[in-house]
Amino acid sequence: MNEGSERARKAIARCREIAECTEIAGETTRTFLAPSMQRVHELLSGWMHAADMAVRVDAAGNLRGVLPATEVNAPRLVIGSHLDTVANAGAFDGVLGVMMGLALAEEIGAGRLPFAVEVVGFSEEEGVRFATPFLGSLALTGELDASLLARKDADGVSVAEAIRGFGLDPAEMTDAQLDAATFAYLEFHIEQGPVLESEGCALAVVDAIAGQTRMQLRFTGHANHAGTTPMGPLRQDALAAAAEWVCEVERYAGKTRGLVATVGKIEVPSGAGNVVPGMCAATLDVRHAQDAVRAKAIQHLLEFAAAAAAHRGVRLDHTTTLDQAAVAMDAELAKVLIENTGHATNGEARVLTSGAGHDAMILARRVPSAMVFLRTPGGLSHHPDESVIEEDVEAALAAGLEFLWLLGDDREMLNRLVKNARVYAGGAHA
Amino acid sequence: MNEGSERARKAIARCREIAECTEIAGETTRTFLAPSMQRVHELLSGWMHAADMAVRVDAAGNLRGVLPATEVNAPRLVIGSHLDTVANAGAFDGVLGVMMGLALAEEIGAGRLPFAVEVVGFSEEEGVRFATPFLGSLALTGELDASLLARKDADGVSVAEAIRGFGLDPAEMTDAQLDAATFAYLEFHIEQGPVLESEGCALAVVDAIAGQTRMQLRFTGHANHAGTTPMGPLRQDALAAAAEWVCEVERYAGKTRGLVATVGKIEVPSGAGNVVPGMCAATLDVRHAQDAVRAKAIQHLLEFAAAAAAHRGVRLDHTTTLDQAAVAMDAELAKVLIENTGHATNGEARVLTSGAGHDAMILARRVPSAMVFLRTPGGLSHHPDESVIEEDVEAALAAGLEFLWLLGDDREMLNRLVKNARVYAGGAHA
Repeated sequence: MNEGSERARKAIARCREIAECTEIAGETTRTFLAPSMQRVHELLSGWMHAADMAVRVDAAGNLRGVLPATEVNAPRLVIGSHLDTVANAGAFDGVLGVMMGLALAEEIGAGRLPFAVEVVGFSEEEGVRFATPFLGSLALTGELDASLLARKDADGVSVAEAIRGFGLDPAEMTDAQLDAATFAYLEFHIEQGPVLESEGCALAVVDAIAGQTRMQLRFTGHANHAGTTPMGPLRQDALAAAAEWVCEVERYAGKTRGLVATVGKIEVPSGAGNVVPGMCAATLDVRHAQDAVRAKAIQHLLEFAAAAAAHRGVRLDHTTTLDQAAVAMDAELAKVLIENTGHATNGEARVLTSGAGHDAMILARRVPSAMVFLRTPGGLSHHPDESVIEEDVEAALAAGLEFLWLLGDDREMLNRLVKNARVYAGGAHA
Repeated sequence: MNEGSERARKAIARCREIAECTEIAGETTRTFLAPSMQRVHELLSGWMHAADMAVRVDAAGNLRGVLPATEVNAPRLVIGSHLDTVANAGAFDGVLGVMMGLALAEEIGAGRLPFAVEVVGFSEEEGVRFATPFLGSLALTGELDASLLARKDADGVSVAEAIRGFGLDPAEMTDAQLDAATFAYLEFHIEQGPVLESEGCALAVVDAIAGQTRMQLRFTGHANHAGTTPMGPLRQDALAAAAEWVCEVERYAGKTRGLVATVGKIEVPSGAGNVVPGMCAATLDVRHAQDAVRAKAIQHLLEFAAAAAAHRGVRLDHTTTLDQAAVAMDAELAKVLIENTGHATNGEARVLTSGAGHDAMILARRVPSAMVFLRTPGGLSHHPDESVIEEDVEAALAAGLEFLWLLGDDREMLNRLVKNARVYAGGAHA
């Protein structure tokens, strides 16, 4: 375990300073291009300029600072995460990843590497204001299109109007796209889960961002008097069917490596304590790094639900509200990072699948991408008490620096990555 | 199976006529001493007078008609049920039992039996207006006391004020108590359940009114991200614990003869589809004719819930909202009625436990009581489509007449019942 360091303390202090930029006094709430984001840009631009970076805000409101390479027309590595937050957020979700990129650029210095390092603070990832996430990163992949620009917030303000209101011009969106020389995207992010803490690990390298299925199930039986309707075939208890299925969701996911499956909501609408449930509605959330495993799980759980229902004379209906494919992180980048994080933590490198979506999921459509997770105390995120451990931040900085110097020293590896990126951009991922 | 008859059609037609007396046009809703009850009393008094019965309305608003015996100071049999309804009710729940008593009195005629027959239409059983049931029958057992009289409805009107508003005097409540000569109470009622229909039976004699326990359970785990929290010990899923318990409620009741156990409501407060449930609240309703069986069931189900919770690091809390003992119907009266209903239906007599409360449950505190259930098509009650089958009503009338003539003819049996009633009133039941 590395000890804490001045640079880690600085990155953490900057996250806490940015957390003071908020739409709601006394908490941290900062949505897409809200006035409080102007102050974030002021702070971040100042730090970037001081590190000899070329700073601009693109048409999607992403703040971008480029640390020059040893030569012009060099390849480019993008390091980023998001600057917006959920309501009543913590200080580290997203923001830490940007501060990590900045700290690495500061440590490296301008004109020291054979590739440029672009640090991006994405304007939007959480989906709070426009009920659609990833507006910032979609601009880099060229997908922040007319239909997204026309989307309106609760006050009837469109994305395009919000952009103009911030002093930007949505007509210049093309200039927001990734520089053609970009060969990789790297994102540091808090884990937002309990795994690293439970295993006593500081860092993990992400192998994939899990695919997700979200469904709504409805079990329809028959409401009957709880006292006069005997157990057995004269009951059509919708909740009993749903409960048997909830148990199977837990059991099946528990025995399937890497699968998470959750029934987060359940209710018996118009139910009463003395009435056999006539209807029961429930949600299902299933995630896995491999789409085939997820698809098999969904099929099994729906068949099980149908059988548990039929067994009781209950009808099953279901709808799918989200079906999002898994996104693999780049295997070669991950391999190098696993070595670096292993060195930095003096321990065995941990590989995790991300159960949540991140900007890297979008960037991976255009460029080989990688993610490093930092241990999240208590697994707590999206909460004012969200925190990080100074030693973990130092370990992540050390791993990042090792990664950057390695790429700088090993010209053969850099050339291979640049070539891979060209194939990647022109291939199936595009 | 008996065929329909003029007297059965008449009883059914009277129920439908009374269903027209309502507080809300277009449906049948008639609560304690509502204005619509005046018209019910007019109709019923008219029919009773025509049958040579002595009619009065007691201080609790119960309509009471006495068919004279062959002699004065004779023993008395009370036949009754309730005249109030739930909101948007059917025509038969309660009212049919009063019309049965009236029809039997009409068939017998005044001065024909060695005991008087008092037909009672209880003013209140459903508990709608004052959120407390059995106000009518509690007056007969002397339990409509000052605290109940002070109870207020949603408009702030007390029971005592409602009584005065109906033109009655709550100070005369003592006169509402059961006549000291009463030796038995008999109630006809629709089953309100699906058992008789499912077995092709018209009638059943009730052996007991089930005891009830109602509880509220709360499972408290920990809300976590559904994507980043793996299955297993890092999850404290409150719903998963509750679901395992719901399955056991169904399984345990299904294997325990005569037990009904129902989880009628369940919810995950503040739950979301992508969050592991941190809390789950559920109700439990358990009923059985034997209190020991019910107590054992409650103990087992709470132990099971605690284990299902502990297994997942979830805490269990529970509160008991109702714990009502079972009430046995009188075995000797039931035995005679079982023979009579067997004759009347040309079939095997069916014995049922009532899963719902009835006025007989209250009367049984003072006097040996008996109930006869009539098949309920579709098990449907507390609903505008509630119905009865004409042949079943005729069978019930035939059984009731056989019972009355038998008691009239068998002076030895009558004397024994009168003696039993004296012991009963002075004994453990009082």
